[in-house]
Amino acid sequence: MTAPTLDLLGIGNAIVDVLAPAEDGFLAARGLAKGGMRLVSTEEAEALYAAMPPGVESSGGSAANTCAVAAALGARVGFLGKVAKDQLGEVFAHDIRAIGVHFPTPPLEGGAPTARCLILVTPDGQRTMNTYLGACVAFGEADVDAAEVARARVVYLEGYLFDPPAAQAAFRAAARAAHAAGRQVALTLSDPFCVGRHRAAFRAFVAEETDILFANEAEILSLYETDDFEQAAALAAKDVTIAVLTRSERGSVILAGGERHVVAAQPTKVVDTTGAGDAYAAGFLAAHARGLPLPECGRWGSIAAAEVISHYGARPQADVKELVAR
Amino acid sequence: MTAPTLDLLGIGNAIVDVLAPAEDGFLAARGLAKGGMRLVSTEEAEALYAAMPPGVESSGGSAANTCAVAAALGARVGFLGKVAKDQLGEVFAHDIRAIGVHFPTPPLEGGAPTARCLILVTPDGQRTMNTYLGACVAFGEADVDAAEVARARVVYLEGYLFDPPAAQAAFRAAARAAHAAGRQVALTLSDPFCVGRHRAAFRAFVAEETDILFANEAEILSLYETDDFEQAAALAAKDVTIAVLTRSERGSVILAGGERHVVAAQPTKVVDTTGAGDAYAAGFLAAHARGLPLPECGRWGSIAAAEVISHYGARPQADVKELVAR
Repeated sequence: MTAPTLDLLGIGNAIVDVLAPAEDGFLAARGLAKGGMRLVSTEEAEALYAAMPPGVESSGGSAANTCAVAAALGARVGFLGKVAKDQLGEVFAHDIRAIGVHFPTPPLEGGAPTARCLILVTPDGQRTMNTYLGACVAFGEADVDAAEVARARVVYLEGYLFDPPAAQAAFRAAARAAHAAGRQVALTLSDPFCVGRHRAAFRAFVAEETDILFANEAEILSLYETDDFEQAAALAAKDVTIAVLTRSERGSVILAGGERHVVAAQPTKVVDTTGAGDAYAAGFLAAHARGLPLPECGRWGSIAAAEVISHYGARPQADVKELVAR
Repeated sequence: MTAPTLDLLGIGNAIVDVLAPAEDGFLAARGLAKGGMRLVSTEEAEALYAAMPPGVESSGGSAANTCAVAAALGARVGFLGKVAKDQLGEVFAHDIRAIGVHFPTPPLEGGAPTARCLILVTPDGQRTMNTYLGACVAFGEADVDAAEVARARVVYLEGYLFDPPAAQAAFRAAARAAHAAGRQVALTLSDPFCVGRHRAAFRAFVAEETDILFANEAEILSLYETDDFEQAAALAAKDVTIAVLTRSERGSVILAGGERHVVAAQPTKVVDTTGAGDAYAAGFLAAHARGLPLPECGRWGSIAAAEVISHYGARPQADVKELVAR
């Protein structure tokens, strides 16, 4: 087994975020569940966009956000995901490459446009996401180069990939390639409703293919169909090598081989929670790639998450490398 | 003369901004003059974008920013400007309409893409702009509907329109239509280098067609080719009915028919000066449309400017209507 030349290879939906402020009443009037992610059709996306206030566009996507933050923290990172050959696709590709992430997936030509996520940010800082998958549904096994997977210490998959059917096959192939090369597979559950849509598949994938699991409280409860956090945590600890459970302002719990670490959240003023979990995973994995102890991995995660929730948008604006070095 | 049904009709370049942080060394290495605006070709724009850090996209354009802020302040506003029929054009059109601005100009089909401005924001909050005009060069006289102009109390023109040749003809036509209908013409000088490129044309237009002039210190000095602010201010006061001269943290000076008002800047933490002058003009004109006294118009301008320089991007994030009401 050769030494990995990437610390992290993320696989996920390649999405441009459109962020706009919204009042709770705007969500209620449209039956949108605050804090969740729902998939929308072209028509629904157009109707919602037409009703939304002026927005700000920035690159997003769960695993892509994680890759961007991990690269900003000094990790060697690659990302696989499908944009279209259009203006928003150029924006996505520019942003992820400009932060130092290797992004080899060719853009889709002549198909659906680049995916976008219409994100409504309520005054409490919560984000409610409406995702039009666009070109992401064209991401398939052919986009997963086993050699790229084999050169990464960890392949990182977002749970949202359970939604586009071809992507599911692609990331199963990636997991097999990673394990065949002696690498680790990390998974983030992404969203409690996404877990609910594909629970059996998630449970099997977690038990059989996942080495490092990231989940927030709602997601891990949804996965194991319980309302008892400790029970869910114990089940996760049996299924995977490292379970990393985030609990918003209550910090995070890391379970690994009988160890249990509780890490405090970094205090900050919450402006927009978009990308909080993605940034936490980035901090954790960037520290883990350096061989740092688990509590320190959690501290990096908390610092990265605090940075992205202190402003609009899911990608860091401050020098996160300097923040973790303090 | 019928009563105006719009308070303000802006005419300007329809641009999407791409904002990214940059160190002073990044500007120096590329010979970019900090604080200025330069026009770039497709090739220059691509090369600069490739070298830039990850960005954030939001609607921009000088007069368009003014229209957006004025609408947010409760003014009845229209905007004329040319986007292409593409994704960034849709973003621009969505954002300006979502804030309540009437935007009737049809998009350009089959020509250049929507204009974008690559804006580098240095740690001191200064912005340095690199504009690819794209579809804006197709804006011409045919896009100026005299009936739209006639229904606005004030037609507001950005000096940047001196750059695309067809736009110059278009805004001269707009000025004639406005005066024929008994309306006022406002002009912002936009940029000292733009004034330098077209000084004779600017001087003639200010003297012959402009009722309300907006300029910052560098621009008014460039217009009258002097380094004496008081001399420039006196010349401006002779040329126009109301001269509004902004001086960054030193506030603004308003000259009108022998009156002279000095208005303090609103204290704020400067994050990004993009759009400061645009927002000032919006506040001034929105208050002026309500018949408020000139010092109050200046106060609205200062408050609106302080809001947009306190965060990334040229469009307001806070409720500016509430800010001026305090």
